Amino acid sequence: MPKKKFQKSRNTGKNQIIYGFHAVRAALLNSKRVHDELYITENNRKIAENLKSKIQKITILDQKEFKKNHGEIKSTQGIVLRTNDFERPNLQQFIKNENSKNKSVLLVLDQITDPQNIGSIMRSCALFNCAGIIVAKDNAPDLTSSLYKAASGAAEIVNYFKVTNLKRSISELKKHGYWVYGFDSSNDNKSIDVNFSKKAILVFGSEGKGMRDLVKKECDEIIKLKMQKNTDYMIDSLNVSNAAAIALYEFFKS
Amino acid sequence: MPKKKFQKSRNTGKNQIIYGFHAVRAALLNSKRVHDELYITENNRKIAENLKSKIQKITILDQKEFKKNHGEIKSTQGIVLRTNDFERPNLQQFIKNENSKNKSVLLVLDQITDPQNIGSIMRSCALFNCAGIIVAKDNAPDLTSSLYKAASGAAEIVNYFKVTNLKRSISELKKHGYWVYGFDSSNDNKSIDVNFSKKAILVFGSEGKGMRDLVKKECDEIIKLKMQKNTDYMIDSLNVSNAAAIALYEFFKS
Repeated sequence: MPKKKFQKSRNTGKNQIIYGFHAVRAALLNSKRVHDELYITENNRKIAENLKSKIQKITILDQKEFKKNHGEIKSTQGIVLRTNDFERPNLQQFIKNENSKNKSVLLVLDQITDPQNIGSIMRSCALFNCAGIIVAKDNAPDLTSSLYKAASGAAEIVNYFKVTNLKRSISELKKHGYWVYGFDSSNDNKSIDVNFSKKAILVFGSEGKGMRDLVKKECDEIIKLKMQKNTDYMIDSLNVSNAAAIALYEFFKS
Repeated sequence: MPKKKFQKSRNTGKNQIIYGFHAVRAALLNSKRVHDELYITENNRKIAENLKSKIQKITILDQKEFKKNHGEIKSTQGIVLRTNDFERPNLQQFIKNENSKNKSVLLVLDQITDPQNIGSIMRSCALFNCAGIIVAKDNAPDLTSSLYKAASGAAEIVNYFKVTNLKRSISELKKHGYWVYGFDSSNDNKSIDVNFSKKAILVFGSEGKGMRDLVKKECDEIIKLKMQKNTDYMIDSLNVSNAAAIALYEFFKS
Protein backbone atom coordinates (compact mmCIF):
# COMPACT_ATOMS: atom_id res chain seq x y z
CA MET A 1 0.00 0.00 0.00
CA PRO A 2 1.41 3.41 -0.91
CA LYS A 3 2.85 5.29 1.99
CA LYS A 4 1.16 8.59 1.20
CA LYS A 5 -2.18 7.09 2.13
CA PHE A 6 -1.13 7.37 5.73
CA GLN A 7 0.21 10.87 5.58
CA LYS A 8 -1.56 13.47 7.59
CA SER A 9 -2.87 15.81 4.94
CA ARG A 10 -5.46 18.10 6.38
CA ASN A 11 -6.47 17.61 9.94
CA THR A 12 -10.21 18.16 9.72
CA GLY A 13 -10.90 17.75 13.38
CA LYS A 14 -9.59 17.51 16.85
CA ASN A 15 -7.47 14.68 18.12
CA GLN A 16 -9.52 11.79 19.48
CA ILE A 17 -8.88 8.73 21.57
CA ILE A 18 -11.07 5.77 20.63
CA TYR A 19 -10.95 2.44 22.43
CA GLY A 20 -12.78 -0.86 22.37
CA PHE A 21 -12.53 -3.36 19.53
CA HIS A 22 -15.68 -2.50 17.55
CA ALA A 23 -15.27 1.26 17.92
CA VAL A 24 -11.62 1.16 16.83
CA ARG A 25 -12.31 -1.15 13.90
CA ALA A 26 -15.07 1.13 12.59
CA ALA A 27 -12.88 4.23 12.99
CA LEU A 28 -10.09 2.51 11.04
CA LEU A 29 -12.58 1.61 8.30
CA ASN A 30 -13.57 5.28 8.05
CA SER A 31 -11.58 6.66 5.09
CA LYS A 32 -12.47 10.21 6.07
CA ARG A 33 -10.28 9.95 9.16
CA VAL A 34 -6.56 10.60 9.42
CA HIS A 35 -5.08 8.30 12.04
CA ASP A 36 -2.09 8.81 14.28
CA GLU A 37 -1.31 5.61 16.12
CA LEU A 38 -2.80 2.34 17.27
CA TYR A 39 -1.80 0.85 20.63
CA ILE A 40 -2.58 -2.77 21.22
CA THR A 41 -1.73 -5.44 23.77
CA GLU A 42 0.45 -8.42 22.90
CA ASN A 43 -2.42 -10.88 23.13
CA ASN A 44 -4.27 -8.82 20.50
CA ARG A 45 -1.37 -9.18 18.06
CA LYS A 46 -3.53 -11.09 15.61
CA ILE A 47 -6.06 -8.24 15.51
CA ALA A 48 -3.19 -5.85 14.77
CA GLU A 49 -2.24 -8.06 11.80
CA ASN A 50 -5.71 -7.68 10.34
CA LEU A 51 -5.71 -3.92 10.80
CA LYS A 52 -2.27 -3.09 9.46
CA SER A 53 -3.57 -2.11 6.01
CA LYS A 54 -5.55 0.65 7.72
CA ILE A 55 -2.89 2.33 9.82
CA GLN A 56 0.86 2.64 9.55
CA LYS A 57 1.89 3.18 13.13
CA ILE A 58 1.01 0.26 15.35
CA THR A 59 2.59 -0.15 18.77
CA ILE A 60 2.32 -3.49 20.51
CA LEU A 61 2.73 -3.38 24.26
CA ASP A 62 2.74 -5.87 27.10
CA GLN A 63 -0.30 -5.71 29.38
CA LYS A 64 1.50 -3.88 32.15
CA GLU A 65 2.84 -1.11 29.94
CA PHE A 66 -0.44 -0.82 28.08
CA LYS A 67 -2.33 -0.43 31.33
CA LYS A 68 0.14 2.18 32.55
CA ASN A 69 -0.17 4.36 29.45
CA HIS A 70 -3.61 3.64 28.04
CA GLY A 71 -5.85 2.60 30.90
CA GLU A 72 -7.58 -0.50 32.19
CA ILE A 73 -7.89 -3.49 29.86
CA LYS A 74 -11.44 -3.96 31.10
CA SER A 75 -12.62 -0.72 29.50
CA THR A 76 -10.23 -0.43 26.55
CA GLN A 77 -10.22 -4.14 25.63
CA GLY A 78 -6.49 -3.68 25.05
CA ILE A 79 -6.94 -1.60 21.91
CA VAL A 80 -6.65 2.19 21.73
CA LEU A 81 -6.56 4.38 18.63
CA ARG A 82 -5.27 7.92 18.47
CA THR A 83 -6.98 9.48 15.48
CA ASN A 84 -8.49 12.75 14.24
CA ASP A 85 -12.13 13.56 13.98
CA PHE A 86 -13.54 13.99 10.49
CA GLU A 87 -15.69 16.70 9.01
CA ARG A 88 -19.30 16.04 9.76
CA PRO A 89 -22.30 17.83 8.26
CA ASN A 90 -23.92 20.60 10.23
CA LEU A 91 -27.62 20.32 11.03
CA GLN A 92 -28.68 22.37 8.00
CA GLN A 93 -26.64 20.28 5.53
CA PHE A 94 -27.87 17.15 7.23
CA ILE A 95 -31.56 18.10 6.98
CA LYS A 96 -31.14 18.94 3.32
CA ASN A 97 -29.77 15.45 2.74
CA GLU A 98 -32.44 13.77 4.88
CA ASN A 99 -35.11 15.67 2.96
CA SER A 100 -34.18 13.85 -0.23
CA LYS A 101 -35.04 10.52 1.40
CA ASN A 102 -38.45 8.95 1.10
CA LYS A 103 -38.46 8.07 4.78
CA SER A 104 -36.52 9.72 7.58
CA VAL A 105 -36.39 9.37 11.34
CA LEU A 106 -34.40 11.45 13.82
CA LEU A 107 -34.02 11.17 17.56
CA VAL A 108 -34.17 14.00 20.05
CA LEU A 109 -32.78 13.21 23.51
CA ASP A 110 -33.48 15.65 26.31
CA GLN A 111 -31.59 15.51 29.61
CA ILE A 112 -30.09 12.09 28.91
CA THR A 113 -26.62 12.35 30.36
CA ASP A 114 -25.29 8.79 30.50
CA PRO A 115 -22.81 8.16 27.63
CA GLN A 116 -23.53 4.41 27.88
CA ASN A 117 -27.18 4.99 27.11
CA ILE A 118 -26.48 7.40 24.28
CA GLY A 119 -23.87 5.06 22.79
CA SER A 120 -26.26 2.15 22.95
CA ILE A 121 -29.00 4.27 21.32
CA MET A 122 -26.54 5.29 18.60
CA ARG A 123 -25.92 1.64 17.84
CA SER A 124 -29.66 1.04 17.44
CA CYS A 125 -29.87 4.11 15.18
CA ALA A 126 -27.20 2.66 12.88
CA LEU A 127 -29.17 -0.56 12.47
CA PHE A 128 -32.60 1.05 12.05
CA ASN A 129 -31.62 3.76 9.55
CA CYS A 130 -31.72 6.73 11.88
CA ALA A 131 -28.90 9.01 10.79
CA GLY A 132 -29.11 11.70 13.44
CA ILE A 133 -29.44 12.31 17.16
CA ILE A 134 -30.11 15.84 18.36
CA VAL A 135 -29.32 16.86 21.94
CA ALA A 136 -29.07 20.11 23.89
CA LYS A 137 -25.56 21.48 24.43
CA ASP A 138 -26.17 22.09 28.09
CA ASN A 139 -27.73 18.77 29.09
CA ALA A 140 -25.95 16.08 27.09
CA PRO A 141 -22.48 14.51 27.12
CA ASP A 142 -19.81 15.12 24.50
CA LEU A 143 -18.80 12.51 21.98
CA THR A 144 -16.29 11.04 24.41
CA SER A 145 -14.20 7.86 24.27
CA SER A 146 -16.69 6.01 26.44
CA LEU A 147 -19.59 7.11 24.27
CA TYR A 148 -17.63 5.92 21.20
CA LYS A 149 -17.06 2.57 22.83
CA ALA A 150 -20.71 2.10 23.80
CA ALA A 151 -21.73 2.99 20.24
CA SER A 152 -19.65 0.04 18.95
CA GLY A 153 -18.71 1.80 15.72
CA ALA A 154 -22.04 3.54 15.15
CA ALA A 155 -20.53 6.96 15.97
CA GLU A 156 -18.84 6.84 12.54
CA ILE A 157 -22.16 7.00 10.73
CA VAL A 158 -24.77 8.40 13.11
CA ASN A 159 -24.61 12.20 13.43
CA TYR A 160 -24.70 13.67 16.91
CA PHE A 161 -25.86 17.28 16.90
CA LYS A 162 -25.40 19.37 20.01
CA VAL A 163 -27.66 22.36 19.57
CA THR A 164 -28.02 25.50 21.66
CA ASN A 165 -31.79 25.47 21.69
CA LEU A 166 -33.53 22.13 21.38
CA LYS A 167 -37.00 23.64 21.10
CA ARG A 168 -35.93 25.88 18.24
CA SER A 169 -34.27 23.00 16.36
CA ILE A 170 -37.40 20.87 16.65
CA SER A 171 -39.49 23.79 15.47
CA GLU A 172 -37.16 24.18 12.47
CA LEU A 173 -37.48 20.50 11.59
CA LYS A 174 -41.26 20.72 11.70
CA LYS A 175 -41.08 23.23 8.85
CA HIS A 176 -39.40 20.47 6.83
CA GLY A 177 -42.37 18.20 7.24
CA TYR A 178 -41.35 16.22 10.33
CA TRP A 179 -44.01 14.99 12.75
CA VAL A 180 -42.82 15.03 16.35
CA TYR A 181 -43.64 12.10 18.65
CA GLY A 182 -42.81 12.59 22.31
CA PHE A 183 -42.46 9.38 24.34
CA ASP A 184 -43.73 9.62 27.88
CA SER A 185 -44.81 6.57 29.83
CA SER A 186 -47.26 8.44 32.09
CA ASN A 187 -50.56 6.66 32.42
CA ASP A 188 -52.78 9.09 30.61
CA ASN A 189 -50.95 8.98 27.29
CA LYS A 190 -52.10 6.70 24.51
CA SER A 191 -49.94 3.72 23.65
CA ILE A 192 -48.75 3.08 20.16
CA ASP A 193 -49.63 1.33 17.56
CA VAL A 194 -49.04 4.64 15.87
CA ASN A 195 -49.09 5.01 12.13
CA PHE A 196 -45.80 6.79 11.93
CA SER A 197 -45.43 9.68 9.55
CA LYS A 198 -42.79 9.09 6.82
CA LYS A 199 -40.79 11.85 8.44
CA ALA A 200 -40.68 11.39 12.16
CA ILE A 201 -38.86 12.79 15.14
CA LEU A 202 -38.88 10.58 18.22
CA VAL A 203 -38.28 12.47 21.45
CA PHE A 204 -37.12 10.85 24.70
CA GLY A 205 -36.44 12.43 28.06
CA SER A 206 -34.32 11.16 30.92
CA GLU A 207 -35.61 8.22 32.96
CA GLY A 208 -35.97 10.29 36.07
CA LYS A 209 -36.96 13.71 34.91
CA GLY A 210 -38.50 12.98 31.51
CA MET A 211 -38.39 15.68 28.87
CA ARG A 212 -38.67 19.31 29.84
CA ASP A 213 -42.04 20.99 29.40
CA LEU A 214 -40.74 23.36 26.76
CA VAL A 215 -39.67 20.35 24.67
CA LYS A 216 -42.90 18.48 25.36
CA LYS A 217 -44.94 21.46 24.13
CA GLU A 218 -43.12 21.26 20.80
CA CYS A 219 -44.33 17.66 20.24
CA ASP A 220 -47.22 17.02 17.86
CA GLU A 221 -48.22 13.89 19.75
CA ILE A 222 -47.38 12.41 23.14
CA ILE A 223 -47.42 8.63 23.10
CA LYS A 224 -46.20 5.70 25.18
CA LEU A 225 -45.08 2.16 24.51
CA LYS A 226 -47.54 -0.54 25.52
CA MET A 227 -46.37 -2.10 28.76
CA GLN A 228 -47.62 -3.57 32.01
CA LYS A 229 -46.45 -1.39 34.86
CA ASN A 230 -45.91 -2.93 38.25
CA THR A 231 -47.46 -0.66 40.85
CA ASP A 232 -46.54 -2.87 43.83
CA TYR A 233 -42.85 -2.35 43.21
CA MET A 234 -43.12 0.97 41.38
CA ILE A 235 -41.54 -0.33 38.17
CA ASP A 236 -42.97 1.95 35.56
CA SER A 237 -40.48 2.69 32.83
CA LEU A 238 -37.98 0.99 30.57
CA ASN A 239 -34.32 1.85 30.37
CA VAL A 240 -34.25 4.71 27.85
CA SER A 241 -31.99 2.89 25.40
CA ASN A 242 -34.44 -0.03 25.38
CA ALA A 243 -37.41 2.30 24.85
CA ALA A 244 -35.59 4.04 21.98
CA ALA A 245 -34.65 0.69 20.40
CA ILE A 246 -38.29 -0.42 20.41
CA ALA A 247 -39.51 2.88 18.93
CA LEU A 248 -36.83 2.87 16.22
CA TYR A 249 -37.65 -0.75 15.38
CA GLU A 250 -41.34 0.09 15.10
CA PHE A 251 -40.56 2.99 12.76
CA PHE A 252 -38.14 0.88 10.71
CA LYS A 253 -40.80 -1.80 10.24
CA SER A 254 -43.52 0.75 9.36
CA MET B 1 -46.79 0.77 63.02
CA PRO B 2 -46.34 -2.19 65.42
CA LYS B 3 -42.76 -2.93 66.23
CA LYS B 4 -42.96 -6.67 65.64
CA LYS B 5 -43.39 -6.05 61.95
CA PHE B 6 -39.70 -5.38 61.82
CA GLN B 7 -38.59 -8.34 63.86
CA LYS B 8 -36.46 -10.87 62.12
CA SER B 9 -38.62 -13.94 62.14
CA ARG B 10 -37.27 -16.53 59.79
CA ASN B 11 -34.33 -15.67 57.66
CA THR B 12 -35.30 -17.35 54.38
CA GLY B 13 -32.20 -16.42 52.48
CA LYS B 14 -28.70 -15.17 52.54
CA ASN B 15 -27.74 -11.65 53.48
CA GLN B 16 -27.76 -9.24 50.57
CA ILE B 17 -26.51 -5.76 49.87
CA ILE B 18 -28.75 -3.79 47.53
CA TYR B 19 -27.98 -0.25 46.41
CA GLY B 20 -29.41 2.35 44.05
CA PHE B 21 -32.65 4.19 44.68
CA HIS B 22 -35.07 2.10 42.58
CA ALA B 23 -33.59 -1.24 43.59
CA VAL B 24 -33.68 -0.37 47.31
CA ARG B 25 -37.20 1.01 47.14
CA ALA B 26 -38.50 -2.13 45.45
CA ALA B 27 -36.72 -4.38 47.97
CA LEU B 28 -38.27 -2.39 50.84
CA LEU B 29 -41.70 -2.77 49.22
CA ASN B 30 -41.20 -6.53 49.12
CA SER B 31 -43.04 -7.87 52.17
CA LYS B 32 -41.38 -11.27 51.77
CA ARG B 33 -38.04 -9.79 52.76
CA VAL B 34 -36.66 -9.33 56.25
CA HIS B 35 -34.48 -6.23 56.33
CA ASP B 36 -31.48 -5.45 58.50
CA GLU B 37 -30.43 -1.86 57.98
CA LEU B 38 -30.66 1.05 55.57
CA TYR B 39 -27.68 3.38 55.12
CA ILE B 40 -28.33 6.69 53.48
CA THR B 41 -26.47 9.95 52.91
CA GLU B 42 -27.54 13.17 54.61
CA ASN B 43 -28.75 14.76 51.39
CA ASN B 44 -31.08 11.77 50.92
CA ARG B 45 -32.69 12.40 54.32
CA LYS B 46 -36.05 13.14 52.70
CA ILE B 47 -36.01 9.74 50.99
CA ALA B 48 -35.31 8.15 54.37
CA GLU B 49 -38.42 9.89 55.76
CA ASN B 50 -40.57 8.29 53.06
CA LEU B 51 -39.10 4.84 53.67
CA LYS B 52 -39.25 4.72 57.46
CA SER B 53 -42.51 2.77 57.53
CA LYS B 54 -40.69 -0.05 55.72
CA ILE B 55 -37.61 -0.47 57.87
CA GLN B 56 -36.77 0.22 61.47
CA LYS B 57 -33.05 0.71 61.39
CA ILE B 58 -32.02 3.66 59.28
CA THR B 59 -28.56 5.16 59.56
CA ILE B 60 -27.93 8.58 58.09
CA LEU B 61 -24.29 9.33 57.31
CA ASP B 62 -22.36 12.24 55.91
CA GLN B 63 -21.00 11.73 52.38
CA LYS B 64 -17.45 11.06 53.55
CA GLU B 65 -18.40 8.38 56.04
CA PHE B 66 -20.89 6.84 53.65
CA LYS B 67 -18.26 6.60 50.96
CA LYS B 68 -15.77 5.06 53.38
CA ASN B 69 -18.14 2.31 54.54
CA HIS B 70 -20.54 1.76 51.66
CA GLY B 71 -18.76 2.71 48.45
CA GLU B 72 -18.87 5.41 45.81
CA ILE B 73 -21.93 7.67 45.67
CA LYS B 74 -21.83 7.38 41.88
CA SER B 75 -22.71 3.69 41.95
CA THR B 76 -24.75 3.47 45.16
CA GLN B 77 -26.61 6.78 44.73
CA GLY B 78 -26.06 7.25 48.45
CA ILE B 79 -28.51 4.53 49.45
CA VAL B 80 -27.56 1.02 50.55
CA LEU B 81 -29.81 -1.65 52.06
CA ARG B 82 -28.65 -4.66 54.04
CA THR B 83 -31.46 -7.18 53.71
CA ASN B 84 -32.09 -10.90 53.39
CA ASP B 85 -33.06 -12.73 50.26
CA PHE B 86 -36.53 -14.21 50.13
CA GLU B 87 -37.72 -17.65 49.18
CA ARG B 88 -38.14 -17.87 45.46
CA PRO B 89 -39.80 -20.68 43.50
CA ASN B 90 -37.62 -23.33 41.94
CA LEU B 91 -37.91 -23.92 38.21
CA GLN B 92 -40.42 -26.76 38.63
CA GLN B 93 -42.77 -24.75 40.86
CA PHE B 94 -42.37 -21.81 38.54
CA ILE B 95 -43.29 -23.76 35.40
CA LYS B 96 -46.33 -25.16 37.14
CA ASN B 97 -47.50 -21.64 37.86
CA GLU B 98 -46.66 -20.36 34.38
CA ASN B 99 -48.62 -23.26 32.91
CA SER B 100 -51.81 -21.93 34.41
CA LYS B 101 -51.44 -18.72 32.41
CA ASN B 102 -53.04 -18.24 29.03
CA LYS B 103 -49.89 -16.67 27.67
CA SER B 104 -46.35 -17.14 28.91
CA VAL B 105 -42.93 -16.03 27.78
CA LEU B 106 -39.54 -16.93 29.24
CA LEU B 107 -36.05 -15.80 28.33
CA VAL B 108 -33.00 -17.99 27.99
CA LEU B 109 -29.67 -16.15 28.00
CA ASP B 110 -26.58 -18.07 26.95
CA GLN B 111 -23.07 -16.75 27.62
CA ILE B 112 -24.27 -13.26 28.54
CA THR B 113 -21.96 -12.25 31.34
CA ASP B 114 -22.48 -8.51 31.82
CA PRO B 115 -24.65 -7.83 34.90
CA GLN B 116 -25.64 -4.45 33.41
CA ASN B 117 -27.14 -6.15 30.38
CA ILE B 118 -28.92 -8.80 32.42
CA GLY B 119 -30.26 -6.19 34.84
CA SER B 120 -31.55 -4.09 32.00
CA ILE B 121 -33.16 -7.16 30.39
CA MET B 122 -34.78 -8.01 33.74
CA ARG B 123 -36.33 -4.55 33.83
CA SER B 124 -37.82 -5.09 30.37
CA CYS B 125 -39.12 -8.49 31.52
CA ALA B 126 -40.96 -6.85 34.43
CA LEU B 127 -42.74 -4.46 32.08
CA PHE B 128 -43.57 -7.00 29.38
CA ASN B 129 -44.89 -9.77 31.62
CA CYS B 130 -41.94 -12.13 31.38
CA ALA B 131 -41.59 -13.73 34.80
CA GLY B 132 -38.45 -15.76 34.31
CA ILE B 133 -34.93 -15.68 32.94
CA ILE B 134 -33.01 -18.92 32.64
CA VAL B 135 -29.21 -18.95 32.44
CA ALA B 136 -26.45 -21.53 32.70
CA LYS B 137 -24.67 -21.74 36.05
CA ASP B 138 -21.26 -21.71 34.44
CA ASN B 139 -21.64 -18.83 32.01
CA ALA B 140 -23.79 -16.23 33.77
CA PRO B 141 -23.30 -13.80 36.66
CA ASP B 142 -24.86 -14.18 40.09
CA LEU B 143 -27.66 -11.96 41.30
CA THR B 144 -25.15 -9.39 42.56
CA SER B 145 -25.63 -5.87 43.89
CA SER B 146 -24.76 -4.36 40.52
CA LEU B 147 -27.23 -6.63 38.75
CA TYR B 148 -29.88 -5.62 41.30
CA LYS B 149 -29.16 -1.98 40.64
CA ALA B 150 -29.32 -2.33 36.84
CA ALA B 151 -32.64 -4.18 37.22
CA SER B 152 -34.11 -1.09 38.97
CA GLY B 153 -36.37 -3.15 41.22
CA ALA B 154 -37.28 -5.81 38.67
CA ALA B 155 -35.20 -8.44 40.49
CA GLU B 156 -37.95 -8.56 43.13
CA ILE B 157 -40.45 -9.99 40.65
CA VAL B 158 -38.54 -11.55 37.76
CA ASN B 159 -37.15 -14.98 38.58
CA TYR B 160 -33.55 -15.70 37.69
CA PHE B 161 -32.87 -19.41 37.35
CA LYS B 162 -29.30 -20.61 37.20
CA VAL B 163 -29.46 -24.14 35.85
CA THR B 164 -26.76 -26.75 35.47
CA ASN B 165 -27.70 -27.76 31.96
CA LEU B 166 -29.37 -25.15 29.78
CA LYS B 167 -30.10 -27.58 26.97
CA ARG B 168 -31.85 -29.97 29.33
CA SER B 169 -33.96 -27.20 30.88
CA ILE B 170 -35.09 -26.00 27.45
CA SER B 171 -35.91 -29.55 26.48
CA GLU B 172 -37.97 -29.91 29.69
CA LEU B 173 -39.91 -26.71 28.93
CA LYS B 174 -40.72 -27.92 25.44
CA LYS B 175 -42.60 -30.80 27.04
CA HIS B 176 -44.81 -28.18 28.67
CA GLY B 177 -45.84 -26.75 25.31
CA TYR B 178 -43.26 -24.00 24.88
CA TRP B 179 -42.06 -23.10 21.41
CA VAL B 180 -38.39 -22.08 21.37
CA TYR B 181 -37.28 -19.07 19.28
CA GLY B 182 -33.53 -18.57 18.96
CA PHE B 183 -32.46 -15.04 18.01
CA ASP B 184 -29.45 -14.90 15.74
CA SER B 185 -28.77 -11.93 13.49
CA SER B 186 -26.79 -13.92 10.89
CA ASN B 187 -27.82 -13.08 7.37
CA ASP B 188 -29.41 -16.35 6.38
CA ASN B 189 -32.04 -16.41 9.09
CA LYS B 190 -35.53 -15.16 8.47
CA SER B 191 -36.61 -11.94 10.14
CA ILE B 192 -39.69 -11.72 12.25
CA ASP B 193 -42.80 -10.83 11.87
CA VAL B 194 -43.32 -14.14 13.64
CA ASN B 195 -46.69 -15.23 14.86
CA PHE B 196 -45.53 -16.04 18.33
CA SER B 197 -46.83 -19.14 20.04
CA LYS B 198 -48.84 -18.41 23.22
CA LYS B 199 -46.05 -20.12 25.11
CA ALA B 200 -42.73 -18.91 23.93
CA ILE B 201 -39.10 -19.13 24.96
CA LEU B 202 -36.86 -16.43 23.50
CA VAL B 203 -33.19 -17.39 23.42
CA PHE B 204 -30.34 -14.89 23.13
CA GLY B 205 -26.61 -15.50 23.03
CA SER B 206 -23.78 -13.12 23.79
CA GLU B 207 -23.05 -10.31 21.35
CA GLY B 208 -19.68 -11.71 20.42
CA LYS B 209 -20.06 -15.45 20.57
CA GLY B 210 -23.81 -15.87 20.12
CA MET B 211 -25.49 -18.92 21.59
CA ARG B 212 -23.66 -22.20 21.77
CA ASP B 213 -24.45 -24.79 19.12
CA LEU B 214 -25.91 -27.19 21.65
CA VAL B 215 -28.40 -24.51 22.69
CA LYS B 216 -29.12 -23.50 19.10
CA LYS B 217 -29.95 -27.11 18.23
CA GLU B 218 -32.62 -27.10 20.92
CA CYS B 219 -34.45 -24.17 19.25
CA ASP B 220 -37.57 -24.84 17.20
CA GLU B 221 -36.94 -21.81 15.04
CA ILE B 222 -33.99 -19.48 14.44
CA ILE B 223 -35.09 -15.94 13.66
CA LYS B 224 -33.67 -12.44 13.54
CA LEU B 225 -34.98 -8.96 14.05
CA LYS B 226 -35.40 -6.87 10.91
CA MET B 227 -32.55 -4.43 10.65
CA GLN B 228 -30.26 -2.74 8.16
CA LYS B 229 -26.71 -3.89 8.77
CA ASN B 230 -23.87 -1.60 7.87
CA THR B 231 -21.23 -3.65 6.06
CA ASP B 232 -18.83 -0.70 5.51
CA TYR B 233 -18.32 -0.29 9.24
CA MET B 234 -19.19 -3.86 10.25
CA ILE B 235 -22.09 -2.86 12.48
CA ASP B 236 -24.24 -5.93 12.45
CA SER B 237 -25.95 -6.49 15.78
CA LEU B 238 -27.86 -4.68 18.48
CA ASN B 239 -26.84 -4.52 22.10
CA VAL B 240 -28.37 -7.71 23.55
CA SER B 241 -30.58 -5.87 26.05
CA ASN B 242 -32.02 -3.80 23.21
CA ALA B 243 -32.63 -6.89 21.10
CA ALA B 244 -34.33 -8.62 24.04
CA ALA B 245 -36.48 -5.53 24.74
CA ILE B 246 -37.72 -5.49 21.16
CA ALA B 247 -38.49 -9.21 21.15
CA LEU B 248 -40.31 -9.02 24.49
CA TYR B 249 -42.30 -6.04 23.28
CA GLU B 250 -43.29 -7.90 20.12
CA PHE B 251 -44.44 -10.87 22.17
CA PHE B 252 -46.29 -8.65 24.62
CA LYS B 253 -48.18 -6.94 21.79
CA SER B 254 -48.99 -10.26 20.04
